Amino acid sequence: MKAEIIAVGSELLLGQITNTNAAFISARLAEVGINVYYHTVVGDNPKRLEEAITIAQNRADVIIFSGGLGPTKDDLTKETIAKMLGEELESDHAALASIEAYFKRTGRTMTENNKKQALVLTGSKVLTNNYGMAPGMAIDKNGKCYILLPGPPHEMEPMFEKEAIPYLLGASGKREIIVSRVLKFYGIGEAELEYRVLSILEKQTNPTVAPLASPDSVILRLTAKAESVEAAQKLIAPVESEIRSLVGEFIYGIDEDTLSSKAAELLLGNKLTIAAAESLTAGLFMAELADEPGISSSLKGGVVVYDETAKMNQLDIPASLLDEFGVVSPECAAALAQNVKRKFGSDIGVGLTGAAGPDPHDGKPMGTVWIGIACREVVNTFKLSLSGSRNANRKRAARFALYYLIKEMKKRGTEN
Amino acid sequence: MKAEIIAVGSELLLGQITNTNAAFISARLAEVGINVYYHTVVGDNPKRLEEAITIAQNRADVIIFSGGLGPTKDDLTKETIAKMLGEELESDHAALASIEAYFKRTGRTMTENNKKQALVLTGSKVLTNNYGMAPGMAIDKNGKCYILLPGPPHEMEPMFEKEAIPYLLGASGKREIIVSRVLKFYGIGEAELEYRVLSILEKQTNPTVAPLASPDSVILRLTAKAESVEAAQKLIAPVESEIRSLVGEFIYGIDEDTLSSKAAELLLGNKLTIAAAESLTAGLFMAELADEPGISSSLKGGVVVYDETAKMNQLDIPASLLDEFGVVSPECAAALAQNVKRKFGSDIGVGLTGAAGPDPHDGKPMGTVWIGIACREVVNTFKLSLSGSRNANRKRAARFALYYLIKEMKKRGTEN
Repeated sequence: MKAEIIAVGSELLLGQITNTNAAFISARLAEVGINVYYHTVVGDNPKRLEEAITIAQNRADVIIFSGGLGPTKDDLTKETIAKMLGEELESDHAALASIEAYFKRTGRTMTENNKKQALVLTGSKVLTNNYGMAPGMAIDKNGKCYILLPGPPHEMEPMFEKEAIPYLLGASGKREIIVSRVLKFYGIGEAELEYRVLSILEKQTNPTVAPLASPDSVILRLTAKAESVEAAQKLIAPVESEIRSLVGEFIYGIDEDTLSSKAAELLLGNKLTIAAAESLTAGLFMAELADEPGISSSLKGGVVVYDETAKMNQLDIPASLLDEFGVVSPECAAALAQNVKRKFGSDIGVGLTGAAGPDPHDGKPMGTVWIGIACREVVNTFKLSLSGSRNANRKRAARFALYYLIKEMKKRGTEN
Repeated sequence: MKAEIIAVGSELLLGQITNTNAAFISARLAEVGINVYYHTVVGDNPKRLEEAITIAQNRADVIIFSGGLGPTKDDLTKETIAKMLGEELESDHAALASIEAYFKRTGRTMTENNKKQALVLTGSKVLTNNYGMAPGMAIDKNGKCYILLPGPPHEMEPMFEKEAIPYLLGASGKREIIVSRVLKFYGIGEAELEYRVLSILEKQTNPTVAPLASPDSVILRLTAKAESVEAAQKLIAPVESEIRSLVGEFIYGIDEDTLSSKAAELLLGNKLTIAAAESLTAGLFMAELADEPGISSSLKGGVVVYDETAKMNQLDIPASLLDEFGVVSPECAAALAQNVKRKFGSDIGVGLTGAAGPDPHDGKPMGTVWIGIACREVVNTFKLSLSGSRNANRKRAARFALYYLIKEMKKRGTEN
């Protein structure tokens, strides 16, 4: 099955927004084994859109559209497709009711053109939009499958995931349920992860197991097809166990977890307070933790000790320690963690020190970082040797500190 | 002149990377008045690339390629175009010398396929790559213009800006020089900026004046065409003066300046040291300032005082002040700024306190932020009423603090 993605919108051709939808849709299609051969972007122009569709019909089996489903006269994706397929547009009751409810709820006045958003292609399956007004559509005609999705990513992405993917996979006739589970990794590269779970990747069928790398982390997505959610979960469970037995130490969370959300969950769940002393990261660790709402009952605060005097004056790091071991040392990281913990009266203290670059610092090469984590009476230190740019190294150091913090809290959890 | 942008690379079709190149190129073409009608993405497949080029030749005058100029056998953009245009590939001396120098410098061994990167289309103008090995090319043939650019954005973007744009604008025959100057704004929205400089936008011809909004700031790009750099600069100067007289108070920098680079430049240039006390931003302000290499001689450090106890214990904020005025108040922001300045012995102290959200804090609505800046004996406070999400508000608060810091330092500079 060959797919083409057509994004519609003049703002894309003006460079005002980037076509992230095509990347999102492509990644999900790759995971379920559908090949994407072309992306096309075309403006809000019916003639050029029609030409783009004609070209796509000659080279693809599945054409996925994003954008152009809105209420204004510029929005003409479904009108153009209706004309080309010889279908009519009819008002969808559920979609219209949802639009009317939205206007009632927000106290705004609904105008005639808002009703246009409830129009769908006759004979199409309506894809529910839980985050906006314009419904999506899926229709098979003359051997081609057309999927119409709204442009805003926060509307399009869940709709594609929950409605379009099952439609595409079910197009064969069988009505199967698709269940995905995402395992999130840190501290391991994509190549090494693939190498370690190669035996699983090679024998995968149902569930499929797809690795995906972002600049900063790696995930494995397990996708199972079955008659029911329970049956799909039963297919996933043993494969997940096998993966965990091989590389479980690098898994920090699942599905929507981020490093900071997982750290916050463990801190708040265990009623642990935390403070940090940051040198090279200069606040990045605390700022990332503070991304999580509700963290104020755990995060007491901390100190940025960017220069050596600040380390001595603000956190009582002895000059003798700095003389003997240097600023970029496990001894300094441990002392930062212990002293900030004491100073803020927290359960956990985190210390970060290192040579971000571009130059070596304290005789240590760029990219050398020491992280100290003091938890109750125990303090552990961790060394990183990073190879990125100055600011990439600083971000990664903060993320690694969150990762080690999660590991330390999990270890405590199993020990108690 | 109608343009189409063709990005080549299977990683785009797999959704592993997003096609930011098309957005960048489109935005720059829009600024110089060239219309983009289509974006196409095609994989590393010679037959499908050829088909995509044939389609583009039928609907565009200028075809801009990004990607597929590398050393591996997957990289086939120039080979495919050479074949279609009936041109040969020949080794470019300058490009080859630059590749050889790179390998010599890094001590790595150059293999035969690296030489492939120096091959260019006969009859093309070579576009120099200052940030990578593969040169770009520009060639006019049969009434169409072909521009070939490398895929990595940090190589492509300066090459497009400095070499492809002048080539495209000079294609008419006249060899004009293009000079751009970017004015960078903060603290003013795109709509208001446009409104205030409307008289200039409406009469613009040479230089053109193009507003461009990112999620967090607005720029005006002035682009002049002339016989020489000096002549172009003479065209820009009076328009820039006029803009500065209307909205100069919101300009924090030019061209490559960022808020943090400008703040660092003023701090280091005036030999001023700085410390910060951050509540809602929890380290974002310091972390952003520390993005700048060399900042360690100015940034002493600071304190994250996320909870009320920390504010009292770590920075001696009197309980009576918090009782009387609240945590989210100009009094608290001023006290944070003054006390962190004293504690770290710095010339400048910055204090940030506010209600990031999602809930009101201290009786103040979400989005209320107070910034205090203590500079020598003077302390000024600034109020923000932000309307974004929790984390957007935190980021904007940190950026506004940089912006007010820049303004305070500039004011001092003119007063002294």
